[in-house]
Amino acid sequence: MEEKYRAETEPVAGNGLLHRRIFLAGGAAAAGAATIAGRSEATPLPVESWMKIPGAPFNGYGQPSKYENKVVRTLASAPGTGGTGVSRTPHHLLSGMITPSGLHYERSHSGIPDIDPSAHRFVIHGLVKRALEFTLDDLGRYPMESRIAFLECAGNSGALFQKEPVQANIQAIHGLLSCQEWTGIRLATLLQEAGVEPQAKWLLAEGADAAGMSRSVPIEKAMDDAMIALYQNGERVRPSNGYPMRLLLPGFEGNMNVKWLRRIKLTEGPTMTKDETSKYTILLPSGKALQFVFPLEAKSMITHPSPGLTLRGPGFYEISGLAWSGYGKIAKVEVSADGGKSYGVAALQEPVLPKALTRFRMAWQWNGAPAVLQSRSTDETGYVQPSRAQLIALRGDRGGFHNNMVQSWAVSASGEVQNVYA
Amino acid sequence: MEEKYRAETEPVAGNGLLHRRIFLAGGAAAAGAATIAGRSEATPLPVESWMKIPGAPFNGYGQPSKYENKVVRTLASAPGTGGTGVSRTPHHLLSGMITPSGLHYERSHSGIPDIDPSAHRFVIHGLVKRALEFTLDDLGRYPMESRIAFLECAGNSGALFQKEPVQANIQAIHGLLSCQEWTGIRLATLLQEAGVEPQAKWLLAEGADAAGMSRSVPIEKAMDDAMIALYQNGERVRPSNGYPMRLLLPGFEGNMNVKWLRRIKLTEGPTMTKDETSKYTILLPSGKALQFVFPLEAKSMITHPSPGLTLRGPGFYEISGLAWSGYGKIAKVEVSADGGKSYGVAALQEPVLPKALTRFRMAWQWNGAPAVLQSRSTDETGYVQPSRAQLIALRGDRGGFHNNMVQSWAVSASGEVQNVYA
Repeated sequence: MEEKYRAETEPVAGNGLLHRRIFLAGGAAAAGAATIAGRSEATPLPVESWMKIPGAPFNGYGQPSKYENKVVRTLASAPGTGGTGVSRTPHHLLSGMITPSGLHYERSHSGIPDIDPSAHRFVIHGLVKRALEFTLDDLGRYPMESRIAFLECAGNSGALFQKEPVQANIQAIHGLLSCQEWTGIRLATLLQEAGVEPQAKWLLAEGADAAGMSRSVPIEKAMDDAMIALYQNGERVRPSNGYPMRLLLPGFEGNMNVKWLRRIKLTEGPTMTKDETSKYTILLPSGKALQFVFPLEAKSMITHPSPGLTLRGPGFYEISGLAWSGYGKIAKVEVSADGGKSYGVAALQEPVLPKALTRFRMAWQWNGAPAVLQSRSTDETGYVQPSRAQLIALRGDRGGFHNNMVQSWAVSASGEVQNVYA
Repeated sequence: MEEKYRAETEPVAGNGLLHRRIFLAGGAAAAGAATIAGRSEATPLPVESWMKIPGAPFNGYGQPSKYENKVVRTLASAPGTGGTGVSRTPHHLLSGMITPSGLHYERSHSGIPDIDPSAHRFVIHGLVKRALEFTLDDLGRYPMESRIAFLECAGNSGALFQKEPVQANIQAIHGLLSCQEWTGIRLATLLQEAGVEPQAKWLLAEGADAAGMSRSVPIEKAMDDAMIALYQNGERVRPSNGYPMRLLLPGFEGNMNVKWLRRIKLTEGPTMTKDETSKYTILLPSGKALQFVFPLEAKSMITHPSPGLTLRGPGFYEISGLAWSGYGKIAKVEVSADGGKSYGVAALQEPVLPKALTRFRMAWQWNGAPAVLQSRSTDETGYVQPSRAQLIALRGDRGGFHNNMVQSWAVSASGEVQNVYA
């Protein structure tokens, strides 16, 4: 047993990182033995108060435990508004790859419209042979598909461009990111029915919110994997995520996945809306700006531990996090416990799906000394997530969008975790 | 284009079933053309009332649209109680494979206990080298895993044993079935730490509800893929699903996945609790009963169309449903539109995962005449879901458990759908 334990806990990188085989079936023996209290058979199990009375009745639509009432999105709105801004997902309090619908992040430009689904129409027009108008019932007859896909705001993690590391948790820094199962109709199916004219190379997608949020999308993406999403995590799309329908462009920056979708207009070129000229461009050190950079580059972050999740003394810990790429599947995640001097390869949770969050796990025997944790992802194209220095060399530090630099968490001797640049 | 359309819509079985290639990218052209209104570019798009005012503000924990307030679980409780009975998932109103947590089915024997997670303890004892007692925080340090798994009550679909077909919808007949992403610790990891004695061949799992719900589980399952689940769909397990922790035995009948788990006791044989002797056995025609038949056999059902979802005239429809097996992955789903005379092979939504729900889809050109729809699944072991006659020949019609017979939906000329025996 002891020999087996040594084999299972083989170090693979500096400062206590262990081989990922510890996650295989039946592995990780004795991983926590140092910390768990033994128990005498002679001690009776307590019969807690909740075992002595009948429990609560059933209800039609369930909610989380009252003890979890701090597991909520945090909100940030423009002055004088309650719905122009963002709400962020608390990744330090979640696990797995699916985000619960109640905690999916939001980015809205004029609040959540109160749309009557029976009155809502979706129109395809512009450079098509036959403009079409769909009710929600009409759409229900079409062939559908499902896919698990992440959504991430183009501005997520922008705070890491600041000169000094912000003292904030993962929800504040990286919370504009979520992942769900989406079900709907391939946009290609509806475009084929309308008949796309040869000169149509782009489309305009417009939402039915008061901002009329609008973005231009290349026709190639529309014919590839774009979806008119009607369901998220099994139920109808939530109001905050576009009820009764939204555009889903897997891997593309969040705001292009237009919520409350009311029309798609086929066009020769991009429409140059306010939402793609005044915002969502990437400023370069030269002063030029990149426009229409759509897929989000490979990225990762360690969710456990992270700020606020204080370690309770030395010993075994699971380092766990999320990795994703707008270009396809995650191929590899490497984790460091010594600020990037050495890396070990993390275990990836199957199924690893393209353009979806992938949960990774790394075994760590913490010796109680200060440590700096990092994760670095590589996607199936071979692209490697850049360090902070590499990204700033490429892009400068004045742009807030598409920030996919490696995140460093410092663990102090007392087990506290904070954002640092390393 | 017309030739392509003919190729895409090749019939594969009687009464209008079309080849599944219609679900491939860019397929299904013109599928709905007969029914969708064209639209003149000259007609201005209406600006609905909800586009004229700022929308609603953000909130910490989101909910479905008020227009979806009929998408709820239906409840059935024993007289004088509100929490002894079941609540059922409305599969006719959902799509995809993930069930939202608020709509996960429940089967409880004495309501939902109000458990304080900081006071809750999980104990492993009995035939082990060292009995262990875990707090929720203790468990947070162990290596975890995630898996998407279905849960189904052993009594689901029992109504189909009745002599006459019940006039009820899919929620009433098949609603004790759900599927989520579960995250937690492999039970094998904790058992290895406790050290299982060689004579321990079973274990007893007990819940912290007032019923003390208890089941016996073979040690082989415990060491294989059993999990102490702490999260469902990313967030902490809901109270109705076992907060703060439950046993997950992928593929095994639902009640064995003990909720509110408080202890696991290693034993030489099964404990013969009230919950496995007075219930959850399978009565045979001979009068004998099968006990300890744990995995749920391959099964499927068509969710769309199903009773209550009336077809609006002839034309193209997607037939969609769910298939699953407690023995592994679904290998094939066949669909019939002529009451089982002929079958076509349905498209399976990737990823197809073991012991998880799999969404299947079939293209159907309905000619407006009465039809009988069926689905029949085959799992990776080669087992084929039985017809009603086959299952009754094997087991008689007096047992209510493990009813996995083929479901038949009759579609009338007016488009109404009802449960029939065919």
